Amino acid sequence: MTLRIDLNCDLGESFGAYTIGQDEEMMKYVSSVNIACGFHAGDPLVMMQTVKQALKNGLKIGAHPGLPDLQGFGRRNIHITHQEAYALVQYQVGALQAMVTAQGGKLTHVKPHGALYNMAAKDFELALSIAKAVYDIDGSLVLFGLSGSELTRAGTETGLTVAHEVFADRTYQSDGSLTSRSLPDAVLHDADRVEEQVVRMVEHQQVQTITGEIISIQADTVCLHGDNIEGISLAKRLKENLS
Amino acid sequence: MTLRIDLNCDLGESFGAYTIGQDEEMMKYVSSVNIACGFHAGDPLVMMQTVKQALKNGLKIGAHPGLPDLQGFGRRNIHITHQEAYALVQYQVGALQAMVTAQGGKLTHVKPHGALYNMAAKDFELALSIAKAVYDIDGSLVLFGLSGSELTRAGTETGLTVAHEVFADRTYQSDGSLTSRSLPDAVLHDADRVEEQVVRMVEHQQVQTITGEIISIQADTVCLHGDNIEGISLAKRLKENLS
Amino acid sequence: MTLRIDLNCDLGESFGAYTIGQDEEMMKYVSSVNIACGFHAGDPLVMMQTVKQALKNGLKIGAHPGLPDLQGFGRRNIHITHQEAYALVQYQVGALQAMVTAQGGKLTHVKPHGALYNMAAKDFELALSIAKAVYDIDGSLVLFGLSGSELTRAGTETGLTVAHEVFADRTYQSDGSLTSRSLPDAVLHDADRVEEQVVRMVEHQQVQTITGEIISIQADTVCLHGDNIEGISLAKRLKENLS
Amino acid sequence: MTLRIDLNCDLGESFGAYTIGQDEEMMKYVSSVNIACGFHAGDPLVMMQTVKQALKNGLKIGAHPGLPDLQGFGRRNIHITHQEAYALVQYQVGALQAMVTAQGGKLTHVKPHGALYNMAAKDFELALSIAKAVYDIDGSLVLFGLSGSELTRAGTETGLTVAHEVFADRTYQSDGSLTSRSLPDAVLHDADRVEEQVVRMVEHQQVQTITGEIISIQADTVCLHGDNIEGISLAKRLKENLS
Repeated sequence: MTLRIDLNCDLGESFGAYTIGQDEEMMKYVSSVNIACGFHAGDPLVMMQTVKQALKNGLKIGAHPGLPDLQGFGRRNIHITHQEAYALVQYQVGALQAMVTAQGGKLTHVKPHGALYNMAAKDFELALSIAKAVYDIDGSLVLFGLSGSELTRAGTETGLTVAHEVFADRTYQSDGSLTSRSLPDAVLHDADRVEEQVVRMVEHQQVQTITGEIISIQADTVCLHGDNIEGISLAKRLKENLS
Repeated sequence: MTLRIDLNCDLGESFGAYTIGQDEEMMKYVSSVNIACGFHAGDPLVMMQTVKQALKNGLKIGAHPGLPDLQGFGRRNIHITHQEAYALVQYQVGALQAMVTAQGGKLTHVKPHGALYNMAAKDFELALSIAKAVYDIDGSLVLFGLSGSELTRAGTETGLTVAHEVFADRTYQSDGSLTSRSLPDAVLHDADRVEEQVVRMVEHQQVQTITGEIISIQADTVCLHGDNIEGISLAKRLKENLS
Repeated sequence: MTLRIDLNCDLGESFGAYTIGQDEEMMKYVSSVNIACGFHAGDPLVMMQTVKQALKNGLKIGAHPGLPDLQGFGRRNIHITHQEAYALVQYQVGALQAMVTAQGGKLTHVKPHGALYNMAAKDFELALSIAKAVYDIDGSLVLFGLSGSELTRAGTETGLTVAHEVFADRTYQSDGSLTSRSLPDAVLHDADRVEEQVVRMVEHQQVQTITGEIISIQADTVCLHGDNIEGISLAKRLKENLS
Repeated sequence: MTLRIDLNCDLGESFGAYTIGQDEEMMKYVSSVNIACGFHAGDPLVMMQTVKQALKNGLKIGAHPGLPDLQGFGRRNIHITHQEAYALVQYQVGALQAMVTAQGGKLTHVKPHGALYNMAAKDFELALSIAKAVYDIDGSLVLFGLSGSELTRAGTETGLTVAHEVFADRTYQSDGSLTSRSLPDAVLHDADRVEEQVVRMVEHQQVQTITGEIISIQADTVCLHGDNIEGISLAKRLKENLS
């Protein structure tokens, strides 16, 4: 039973004695996983075990490189140079790629994490550094980026296949950007509305903005969150409806 | 002009604003470099730049993975499990491999660093974890280990080609082990004696121990140190004599 | 209502986005808390908030310094020098002390964590470095160490008041040492037996060893664990029985 | 022989095997040292040894807390919250304070480092968090900040004594701010001009800006750099002229 759209989830975010997320459960519902690479979350052992689980579940495996900031979970902006961005993405993608290869799989995609993802969505030069770092490892890797952002544009320009990513439970502004998490209505909490939004994105490549307009949006992959119980039940529901 | 034996050096040990070693100079004299991978020394940017320099100099490039201990430069024993060893070696080798590949080169070998190297020289099970981590990435990688140690034995058993490493300026015990650095006569300081030792190792696969005996030793590659001025002049001299 | 013996718990072990332990709940039942200081667990923000909670609960606050090993949660032995031990203990204790002072409290004790605690229990010279690091900050700080160990001996020799620590749910060997966690019967799982052991320790300064003998043991403080639901209910029960 | 103005230098920036700066030499010429606290540079052992040297030289000792970014040497902006700023400053100041106290000295001042210093110079709320973190430890500590900045303003408002810091070899804009290092004429390289600038600052509380105007500036302490040979000779010269 194939999904009508790729459902992805950030996983492998545990670290040493610290456990986060419900990886095993989420792996039942998504088609792609983005595995943390040790800079903002994850450690070599966690990465290895997460790769193993993902292969067992037959999922597409992507690297999820972040800023070097375990304490901030990669969510705090750090002003890095383009060269630093290139190097730290290549480092992390390479580390995960080796583990996937070693277990007989193949890395399929790369999705920058948190602050790196958000900064690259707006900064074309930074995005280009990231895209090139990926391309230079393997030109067949797919780059995941915020739909319609500088990151997907940089990926395309570099020669990579890109996947425009949409969010199931986040609200959108008129210009297609996400409502900032610092604002009160950034997240949809009602499961019916979340499902409605996803179905509309998948079937019509459209989204209703926070002011009520319908705008077009490219939806190649949908990001789900697995760090709470609602995330799991939503994933299950979406899998059923989109199969 | 080919060397009669491989001369290797640990390089790429700078970190952020911290500079260590005389990499550019040493690259003129050695045939193989072992590049630090960010756990005990090195960072993604330093790694990338060191790979670039090494490729420019036409050198064989190896990964030099260490324990996660920047403060101790990877020289302090940390009691890790075999699974942790497997994972952290694979992580670091993968990270460097991606950078070499991205720049059009090919990773040729792996040499564990410092405490990891020394622990693996005596602990067969630990050595086996390291060897398997390397083998599972690429069975054609050469594993560098202390000559006649558990690490080279584990490498061979795993199916890897191994390089028995000898040290130009370290003294040897009757059983073929290195004299501990905590003892006064661990290091040879006289350049003539160092050269004599290396030539004997290379030509006769023998070494004179600290007590005067001549014992046999397998010498596939010679480790040189580039962190002081004597190291540079020794490297230069050996290159001339062994060409 | 005063407890007949000090009950202590290791707390403040969360880190960034990673949450561990049930600190709020445990603070209702114990009289002393040992707060992680950022090397093996905890971060500055977590430390500050844990100090605040502990002061609100009127608890004695101790520093819980560990080895620099977040990934291993401070449980992996690292071969550090005595000078390194002195410095890293002083650093961590000072950091926490400043936070306690800033909030109007007073640091009362220091308890080394995990591998540092265990190594110091057996290595008098290492223990002495730790004890001196504490003494040189404030000679009135109490040093917590395994009952009858080299750590408490070093503390006494240094001039510190020491607290001999016993464990509520760990089994003891004939020589008064703890049964290694690598052995099957290291931990008592039956709540009645745990309570019986604690009461015997507190009232008679004795413990029944794993082979059935009754030996004497000095019990100044009892360590409880707050990382699972059984830990909470045991703490509650002990508080009731020992009040 | 007393200096007519405080000369300060950032020291203790070595880390593990990595050596940076010429601390011993600089300590002959300055009156205050700002010691790195382990987040952007320095480690517990380096801190302890630097405190020892500083006490031997009879210098005023300050804490030099930075952002948690060893790789970027604390020079990369990281978007931290005010609470995080408060906590990480208090943590680092406390760690160093314990070492100074343990060796019989007394911490005299605090100077934020690099990006933290620069961000606080412009962001009053961030500066206030830093100032409060210092004040809550000890209200008699002096806060060093860029002359006329939000940091010195926040320090004063908090109730701390502040020291307006000027730079010997940096050029100034018409509004009293430093010329950005990204611009070509940010640094004075001519020793005579540097000396002239310092003397004018000290004697007349004035500085000639890059466009030639003379503006007033409060100069309580002068920052010197000890990471190159010119820094040493300048320090020597200034000490002679200002004694």
